[in-house]
Amino acid sequence: MEGVDSLADERKKAEFDVEAMKVIWAGSPHNLQLSDRISKLVANDPVFRKDDRSMLPRKELFKNSLRKAAYTWQRIVDLRLSEEEASKLWFYVDETSYIVLHWLMFIPAIKGQGTDEQHQKWLPFAYNMQIIGCYAQTELGHGSNVKGLETTSTFDPRTDEFVLHSPTLTSSKWWPGGLGKVSTHAVVYARLIIDGKDHGVHGMIYCSTTELGETIGLFQESLVGDIGMKFGNGGFNAMDQWSVAIRSCSYSKKSDVDEVTRDGKYKQSDVPRQLVLWDIGICPTKNCLWRLLVIYQELCVLLQDIVLYVDSLDHGMADLKFRFVGEWLEWLYNDVTKRLQANDFSTLPEAHACTAGLKSITTSVTADGIEECRKLCGGHGYLCSSGLPELYAVYVPNCTYEGDNIVLLLQVARFIIKTVSQLGTGKQPVGTIAYMGRIEHLMQCRCNAQRAEDWLKPSQVLEAFEARAARMSVSVARNLSKFTNSEQGTLLLDGFAELSADLVEAAVAHCQLIVVSKFIEKVQQADIGGEGAALANDQLRSLYTKVRPNAVALVDAFNYSDHYLSSILGRYDGNVYPKLYEAAWKDPLNESDVPDGYEEYVRPLLKQQLHTARL
Amino acid sequence: MEGVDSLADERKKAEFDVEAMKVIWAGSPHNLQLSDRISKLVANDPVFRKDDRSMLPRKELFKNSLRKAAYTWQRIVDLRLSEEEASKLWFYVDETSYIVLHWLMFIPAIKGQGTDEQHQKWLPFAYNMQIIGCYAQTELGHGSNVKGLETTSTFDPRTDEFVLHSPTLTSSKWWPGGLGKVSTHAVVYARLIIDGKDHGVHGMIYCSTTELGETIGLFQESLVGDIGMKFGNGGFNAMDQWSVAIRSCSYSKKSDVDEVTRDGKYKQSDVPRQLVLWDIGICPTKNCLWRLLVIYQELCVLLQDIVLYVDSLDHGMADLKFRFVGEWLEWLYNDVTKRLQANDFSTLPEAHACTAGLKSITTSVTADGIEECRKLCGGHGYLCSSGLPELYAVYVPNCTYEGDNIVLLLQVARFIIKTVSQLGTGKQPVGTIAYMGRIEHLMQCRCNAQRAEDWLKPSQVLEAFEARAARMSVSVARNLSKFTNSEQGTLLLDGFAELSADLVEAAVAHCQLIVVSKFIEKVQQADIGGEGAALANDQLRSLYTKVRPNAVALVDAFNYSDHYLSSILGRYDGNVYPKLYEAAWKDPLNESDVPDGYEEYVRPLLKQQLHTARL
Repeated sequence: MEGVDSLADERKKAEFDVEAMKVIWAGSPHNLQLSDRISKLVANDPVFRKDDRSMLPRKELFKNSLRKAAYTWQRIVDLRLSEEEASKLWFYVDETSYIVLHWLMFIPAIKGQGTDEQHQKWLPFAYNMQIIGCYAQTELGHGSNVKGLETTSTFDPRTDEFVLHSPTLTSSKWWPGGLGKVSTHAVVYARLIIDGKDHGVHGMIYCSTTELGETIGLFQESLVGDIGMKFGNGGFNAMDQWSVAIRSCSYSKKSDVDEVTRDGKYKQSDVPRQLVLWDIGICPTKNCLWRLLVIYQELCVLLQDIVLYVDSLDHGMADLKFRFVGEWLEWLYNDVTKRLQANDFSTLPEAHACTAGLKSITTSVTADGIEECRKLCGGHGYLCSSGLPELYAVYVPNCTYEGDNIVLLLQVARFIIKTVSQLGTGKQPVGTIAYMGRIEHLMQCRCNAQRAEDWLKPSQVLEAFEARAARMSVSVARNLSKFTNSEQGTLLLDGFAELSADLVEAAVAHCQLIVVSKFIEKVQQADIGGEGAALANDQLRSLYTKVRPNAVALVDAFNYSDHYLSSILGRYDGNVYPKLYEAAWKDPLNESDVPDGYEEYVRPLLKQQLHTARL
Repeated sequence: MEGVDSLADERKKAEFDVEAMKVIWAGSPHNLQLSDRISKLVANDPVFRKDDRSMLPRKELFKNSLRKAAYTWQRIVDLRLSEEEASKLWFYVDETSYIVLHWLMFIPAIKGQGTDEQHQKWLPFAYNMQIIGCYAQTELGHGSNVKGLETTSTFDPRTDEFVLHSPTLTSSKWWPGGLGKVSTHAVVYARLIIDGKDHGVHGMIYCSTTELGETIGLFQESLVGDIGMKFGNGGFNAMDQWSVAIRSCSYSKKSDVDEVTRDGKYKQSDVPRQLVLWDIGICPTKNCLWRLLVIYQELCVLLQDIVLYVDSLDHGMADLKFRFVGEWLEWLYNDVTKRLQANDFSTLPEAHACTAGLKSITTSVTADGIEECRKLCGGHGYLCSSGLPELYAVYVPNCTYEGDNIVLLLQVARFIIKTVSQLGTGKQPVGTIAYMGRIEHLMQCRCNAQRAEDWLKPSQVLEAFEARAARMSVSVARNLSKFTNSEQGTLLLDGFAELSADLVEAAVAHCQLIVVSKFIEKVQQADIGGEGAALANDQLRSLYTKVRPNAVALVDAFNYSDHYLSSILGRYDGNVYPKLYEAAWKDPLNESDVPDGYEEYVRPLLKQQLHTARL
């Protein structure tokens, strides 16, 4: 077999200490040791094999994901793993199954929204996986529009039950993972109906009609199932139950609805609606923030795949910038939560525009980057054994979760236009849009960069991005005002529709400014100086040249195992061709030389005997 | 079931006669009637069902595609269909199977490259499907680089045979569709070795060792198979045999190699090498042209899917522009062929830059457009039942066939840089790059558009695109010269690598100019005037507003059946939600309420009895 030595050569070019960088990247020697130990545990266990995922028929793929989940749990129990170790184990097992919903949606929803009594009642069972929960929000006709949810939960004082009902086809719960085939419990979002009055959307815990400890059943009293194959091989098809329709009724004697008194009356909450929506987890701002924080955590992994294909360092650089935004987002999340709890809603519109916009541009750039890398691998990137098709198919829903990215950018644009229209009224723009307060300066300032090196000055870069965003916003606001002036009301909407392309561009410019400004803030805090912030073309190119010899070593420092990446093109030893060849023979079609169907459909064709064949 | 009437309302807004437009789009009443008749024949036949493709396990998917091919052939025979009718039938059956390679690659290769004797010998069998052929060019280590092919075909005078051999792993034939499991014959590209001398890459017909009419076998004397799952559900996985590795030897007593005399000597062709490469079908220019012509034919279909999602009219408009380029490409193809036959190679570099560039930008825009439309459908576009995931997965390889699009654009850039460097030497740029002859004017001309309406003038638009392309090219050429001046030789390459992003941008600008200029030429020929050529933003927006009410009617005029589109979101009646719901229940996972694996892996988990379970 011909070996490929290109990566060994590449590694020699590294200009830094890879082992030291591994520790920095992992955060601490402890983290590095933990990751190493657990990732090897997974890679060496044949049950955790991942390379067959794209070939398995749906039912087998699903069954296998159930097996992996049970086996992982048994390993956690047998090896007495700590919470930290268990969490790493789930991470490296890397299977999209009901587990993800149970730990990352169901349990946090109870912890975040439940009362102390509910915590005591449900969390011990959930932590032990004696119950399996999911998160049922999205409906067939209602995705991002949470206010439009139609499912009802009607209190029946005679039985002390809350009757769940989907009155229309479009109100069927559609997409919630885990609900179709495995879950015993769900946090369901539904309109609370008491004494015939609709009190709006609330989150409630539902379980099967059967009692805990007796028969633990599926949601079979409802009409549940799976919504069918999703984009890509393997990927979310392994999580098959990912989707469900509650069409008939479902009951819960045990459901805990905090807003109902013991005698069955609606208990008006004295908490403002914004905070309620935020708390029960259906505030779009919170969802976008949550998505961004998840993305931020995932970026290390994606970066691995992306930097691997050194032709695309451009995307790699973009993601490094996002990393610093991620840290700032954690601060933003805490800040918004604290303000809402203190009845301060003043920063909410700005925070929403910011999170919706950042979610849009970060996920779009990352998805495009993955797909660009896949194409750069030519035909080989089209093979599932390269790992890239599944990576793309699993990542790309981020572009449509919490609202399609274009829809979100239009929300950002609406906020920008409103801000521009209020300039001069004395209302000062705050936070990430504060630069609009210097609109007069930004509209007339001139770029005074003379040489490429001038773009190493952070202030130069920042002002260029600010001026660009401000000018695009003012320009589209002016065009929009032509519509509103000619006729009131209806034409405003037409203006928004007709100028949507320009509005999206202005929103993107605003969001790119946020990324750049947070990056520069961080770089200046770290006293690194301006060198890392170089953006102008000439400088960027020379930075690529500096990064290039270190690219493979940098990827080594991320310290992901071949098993975790599951990509023949991304192998540590670079031994691509022999392994592509080896993988090909594993395909089900290669189980026999003469394929199923040949005798029935090909030989009679060649022999001109089709008329006697059973077609 | 709630019906959706939005499309009925949309249809009322149409401002043109849909039935008349159907005829115009089809080309003639005869074409329209033919398409209607054959598409209904397919849609009404359960054997041609397409909606299960994404759910079938690989072996069943493959078997089913064999069945459809045999059944289609039997229909052609039974119904005594004409060649035109048969071609339409294959089109509407719309299955990626060995049929595509047999009719579109194998037969044309024999027709185009074979002698009269070869035509008489092979074509009757091929037309009757008594033999099944494929096209074996690409190797594991050699995609676009045809000169690098390693497979050898060595003449053995003792047996009068040509022995096919893959001397290395990287020389395995990799990707050729049909070769692995079904084909009896292949046009193989290999280095011709006679008397120990390598005479370069030639195309040759190979068949199994067994004689025609006796046992018609597969290529089982070679080590053949399938290279594994490809990106996406259904799609090219239905053509499974799509890929093969000839590793061992293969013989052919029947192979016809024109370059060998009866007494086994190499017969030097007196035809120039360029023409030979062009004729045997491995000239990159010819392949790009061929790809473009296929794309041009496919555009009608894609346009349907794209315009359907009216938010993306931008892409729809782009594709309308491509349509006119397509007609011009047919002229170019004939022109280049005639010139080569007359030993005139002067236009070949320009033709190559043009076809490589157009192939790159048209396929990129179309693939991006499909994926953008898919995302605009939110979660529903992620479901295979929307048809969009398969559409994307089947289309996107166009971006990497004949060389990755970025690689092709760099070839275009190299041609542009060479043209710029020769300006002033007396060598006049011709064809699509003739505008560079007016470089001095283009470098200094100023845009004299004052109002949006000025952009309705074709000359205004054309000059803007020319000036943009010329200035970008000159700018990158100047930057590149800095590298060559400082040190000779090695640094030129570094300059190309470091400036690659700028080079690609300049190439894109040049190619966009070609599209725009061919569109304007066509529009002016048709004496439509400038109105259709409006491109500037304000004008473009107002054109969208005009097109918008006609969008659905325009799609109706394309006259594709629901069966052909196979997309629930693209249904004629717009009855999306009930049909999405209906489709969900067909998933294999919904065959039973309790899924396979529940009793083994979920119930013991919930009961805390995993220690006794067999995991």
